[in-house]
Amino acid sequence: MTINRQIILSEYPKGMPQPEHLPMKEGEVPSPKDGQVLIKTIYLSLDPYMRGRMSPAKSYAASVELGEVMQGGTVGQVVESRLEGFEAGDYVLGFGGWQEYSVQGKEMLRKLDPKQAPISTALGVLGMPGFTAYAGLLEIGQPKEGETVVVSAASGAVGQVVGQIAKLKGCRVVGVAGAPDKCQHVLDAYGFDACVNYKDDDFEAQLKAACPDGIDIYFENVGGKVFDAVMKRVNDFARIPLCGRIAHYNDTEAPQGPDQLPAFLTKLLVRRVLIKGFIQFDYAYLMKDFVKDMSAWMQAGKIQYQEDIVQGLENTVEAFQGLLEGRNRGKLLVQVSEDPTR
Amino acid sequence: MTINRQIILSEYPKGMPQPEHLPMKEGEVPSPKDGQVLIKTIYLSLDPYMRGRMSPAKSYAASVELGEVMQGGTVGQVVESRLEGFEAGDYVLGFGGWQEYSVQGKEMLRKLDPKQAPISTALGVLGMPGFTAYAGLLEIGQPKEGETVVVSAASGAVGQVVGQIAKLKGCRVVGVAGAPDKCQHVLDAYGFDACVNYKDDDFEAQLKAACPDGIDIYFENVGGKVFDAVMKRVNDFARIPLCGRIAHYNDTEAPQGPDQLPAFLTKLLVRRVLIKGFIQFDYAYLMKDFVKDMSAWMQAGKIQYQEDIVQGLENTVEAFQGLLEGRNRGKLLVQVSEDPTR
Repeated sequence: MTINRQIILSEYPKGMPQPEHLPMKEGEVPSPKDGQVLIKTIYLSLDPYMRGRMSPAKSYAASVELGEVMQGGTVGQVVESRLEGFEAGDYVLGFGGWQEYSVQGKEMLRKLDPKQAPISTALGVLGMPGFTAYAGLLEIGQPKEGETVVVSAASGAVGQVVGQIAKLKGCRVVGVAGAPDKCQHVLDAYGFDACVNYKDDDFEAQLKAACPDGIDIYFENVGGKVFDAVMKRVNDFARIPLCGRIAHYNDTEAPQGPDQLPAFLTKLLVRRVLIKGFIQFDYAYLMKDFVKDMSAWMQAGKIQYQEDIVQGLENTVEAFQGLLEGRNRGKLLVQVSEDPTR
Repeated sequence: MTINRQIILSEYPKGMPQPEHLPMKEGEVPSPKDGQVLIKTIYLSLDPYMRGRMSPAKSYAASVELGEVMQGGTVGQVVESRLEGFEAGDYVLGFGGWQEYSVQGKEMLRKLDPKQAPISTALGVLGMPGFTAYAGLLEIGQPKEGETVVVSAASGAVGQVVGQIAKLKGCRVVGVAGAPDKCQHVLDAYGFDACVNYKDDDFEAQLKAACPDGIDIYFENVGGKVFDAVMKRVNDFARIPLCGRIAHYNDTEAPQGPDQLPAFLTKLLVRRVLIKGFIQFDYAYLMKDFVKDMSAWMQAGKIQYQEDIVQGLENTVEAFQGLLEGRNRGKLLVQVSEDPTR
C-alpha cells in the first residue's frame, strides 16, 4: 500500500493560518471509480483566495469543511484511468487539493501538452491567475493607449500579467510592491515604467511622481494603504477592477482607520469612478480568447513570468503564510513530486 | 428702470445654507449684447447638486464665485432678443440663476413648445433630473425583467422617474423615502411595488421584507443609513449607479460611523458588485434617445410626475433648505413670475 499524505483543515483559523489549523495526515491512496482518474500531484498552486476557503464566512465559494483535505488547483500525472480520453502518464490540470494523490472526475480536468508550455504554467500565467489578470484588466479596466495603469501586488502571479498586458495595450504601467527586489524585477523582467515600494516612508510622494498624469486604471489586489493612496490620484472616469483584498484576509476584526466609506463614495461620485468586484469564473466566456491571446503572446516572447517553487508538501503551510505576508517571488507553487517534463 | 432682484452667494456656508450666506440684492436689468437674449425668469429649478456649487471644494463643476448670482437652471420668456432664432415671447430653458432677469447666449438655451408639454417639465421630468434617472438607470443599472430595483429619495425629481422607468422595464421597484405621504404617493401615482420609510425604527426589517429576492440595482441618491442597509441585501452582480449623496452634502466634518470602507469593498468583491459615480452630462450622447423615449412615455400616460412649486424668489433659500431636509414633495421649483401658459 502507498501512503497518501494530506493536509487537513482541522480548525478555521482566526488571523494567520498556523500548522495546528492544517495538520498533515497519512491516508491510503484511493482507487478511481468508473469515470474517474487517479492522479499523482506534481505541483500544488497556492493562491490568496484560499484564505477565504478556510473561513466559515459566506463567500462566493463554499468553505472547506472541517476534517476535509484543503482544496486547491494542481498539476499532476495520471496513474490510473477509468475515464475515457485519459490514460496513465497524461499530464493534467485539476483541483486535487493539498495532497499527494487525488481521485478526480472529468469536471475540473484539462489535459496538458508539455511541448506547448511548461506544465506548471497551467497554474499561473496560462491558468487561473493569468486569466484573472486578463479578464479583470480588459473587461472592467478597458485600457486605452496612453492611460496610466497602477497594479498592486505587481510582482505576484496576477499583477505581473496585468502589467504586461497593459503594456501591450500601450499604457503607462506603474507597479506597487513591498520589496526593492520585487520592484526591480517588474522593471527589468516585465517592462513596467515605474514601481513603488509601499513600505517606503515617502510612498505617497513616490506614487504621485510615478503617475504625473494621474491614474486611469487601478487593478486592486491588496487593500490597505495602497488603495487609499491611489484613490487620491484617480482621474475622472477611472476604472477599478477589484480583484482581491489580501491586506485584510487575516483581519480578525473589522479594520478601523481613516479610510471612511462616505468620503470614498463622494470621491467615486465626483470623479465618476467605476469600481467592480469580480472573480475570474464570472468571465468564463472569455476563456477561449485568453488561451489564444496568451499563448500567442508567450510564443512571441511578449509575456514573461516568474515562479517561486517550494519543495515538499510538508512546507505548504509555511509557504502559504509567506504568500499572505508577501514573502513569495512570483507565482507560488509547491512541488509535491518530481516533474518528469523538466 | 426695472429692478432685477438677485440672490447672491456672499459666503460659502458650513453646514446648512442660511439666508445670510445668500442675501437678496437689487440690481438693474441688463441689456443683451449681440448674440444674447434678455430673459424673464418664470421658474427656477432647485436641485441638490447646487449645494456643491456653494462650496469652494473641488468638484466636477466650478464653484460659484463669492459675490456672484447663485447659479441654476431656469425656464423663462424672452423679453428682448439679439440672437438669431430667438424672438421676444419665446419660452426657453436656460441657466439663468437665482434672479428675475438674465442675459444668456445660445450655449445653454433651448426653445420650448408649450403645446408639447408644460414648460416647467423642462426642469424636471423632461429635463436634467429626468435625464439623470434615464441615463443612470439604463446605462449603469442595466435593468432586466424580474429584477429588484431599490430607489432612494423615491418621490424626488430623479427618484420618481427612476422607479417608473424601472417598472416599464419589468422590474420589481421598491422606493425608500422619509415620510408616510411620500411613500403613499410613489405607490399610488407611480406604481412602485413597495415603499419603505427610512425613518421608521424597523426600517431594515421593512426593506428586507420588501425585497424577498434581494436587490439587483440600487439607485443611490442619499447615502447614510439607507446605503448601509441596502448593502446588506445586494445580490451577486448588483449594480449601483451612484448619483448623489444628499445625506452628506451639509457634513461639516468627515462622517464617522460603522460603515467602514474595507468591509464595504469586501462586500463588493464577494458579491461582484459594480458601483459607478456619474453625472448626467457624461451621457450627453443619450440625450436624443431620452427625449424620444420620455416624450413617447409621457404621451402614452406611462410616466407621471409631481412638482412642488414655491411662490416668489424671496422664498428660494428656505425652499432650498427644505430640499436638503427632504421637505419638498416632488420636483422643487420656485415660481419667480407668472406663467402665461397656465
